Amino acid sequence: MKLLEERILKDGKIKQGDVLKVDSFINHQIDIPFIVQLAKEFKRIFGNEKITKILTIESSGIAIASIVAQEFNVPIVFAKKSMSININGDVYTSKVHSYTHGNEYDVIVSKEFLNSEDKILIIDDFLAKGSALNALVKLINDAGATIIGAGIVIEKVYQGGGQIIRDMGVNVVSLASIKKLNEDGTIEFL
Amino acid sequence: MKLLEERILKDGKIKQGDVLKVDSFINHQIDIPFIVQLAKEFKRIFGNEKITKILTIESSGIAIASIVAQEFNVPIVFAKKSMSININGDVYTSKVHSYTHGNEYDVIVSKEFLNSEDKILIIDDFLAKGSALNALVKLINDAGATIIGAGIVIEKVYQGGGQIIRDMGVNVVSLASIKKLNEDGTIEFL
Repeated sequence: MKLLEERILKDGKIKQGDVLKVDSFINHQIDIPFIVQLAKEFKRIFGNEKITKILTIESSGIAIASIVAQEFNVPIVFAKKSMSININGDVYTSKVHSYTHGNEYDVIVSKEFLNSEDKILIIDDFLAKGSALNALVKLINDAGATIIGAGIVIEKVYQGGGQIIRDMGVNVVSLASIKKLNEDGTIEFL
Repeated sequence: MKLLEERILKDGKIKQGDVLKVDSFINHQIDIPFIVQLAKEFKRIFGNEKITKILTIESSGIAIASIVAQEFNVPIVFAKKSMSININGDVYTSKVHSYTHGNEYDVIVSKEFLNSEDKILIIDDFLAKGSALNALVKLINDAGATIIGAGIVIEKVYQGGGQIIRDMGVNVVSLASIKKLNEDGTIEFL
């Protein structure tokens, strides 16, 4: 998506450790009027499918998923990072390894909010090695729900996660696909 | 707001420890089409003010703040719960005590995203003892920005946080104000 690639080139910053920092418009400050444009693109891509819910993962996926959900006129469910006393024990769980933060954590979704009738669109901000996306796929499969697809804002294609998830038969669509982050600060798109 | 009170009576559940569980429509599964109605009410209330940004706190405030931001056509910024390696050191910080989870944590906002020109509307899902809201007010004050007001979905009035923040001169508006959660499962609104 041209609009997104241009914005990444303008406002994205490459940091040590192969990190693309987009926290001025995607994951700390979130440029909601801009995200609306991305949401309309997801609606164009997945709009012919019957979708009952959007699933994302806390925290940085929530804003984007919410705006996409408004386009589809459906609820969102977000996978939570560890047990909270506000949640019953009756949950689906899955493990995520965060390469950015160098740790591993459980995510949970209450069984009340995912069921076999659901047709789920996954929405997330980033796809790199695919650990978070894989965890969401597992939660949906555990619930016996149908995965319509996964809409990703930025995919770092060279990290291989997208290929793994596509090989599982999931329709992964990324609005910006990065081939390479160069040390001189330039970004190559696919 | 009648619509919200009715929904709380229909889908809210009272749990041990004075917990009102609304995770089927507000903070785990989020009924976005319903939240749009709340956002329009916040627009009606604060729509005459010039607002440059909406500030909230991760995680459960993000979805609501995003939908409200769409009504106002402005970005959101969310205060993050502890230092991430994606964030520079140049941050405003504030402390939150969570009575629900029985712990204390720091929240941070990058100095890039709050400045003295900003006119901020705070949005959050719950107001009880006011610790999270107080932390957000401190972040805004530290940045020298202007607080236009705070829009809260559900205020537990009897826990006193709203009074504390109003006494600081902040225009706090709650869409549902709970006077009492009864042990028999009934809820009294103000």
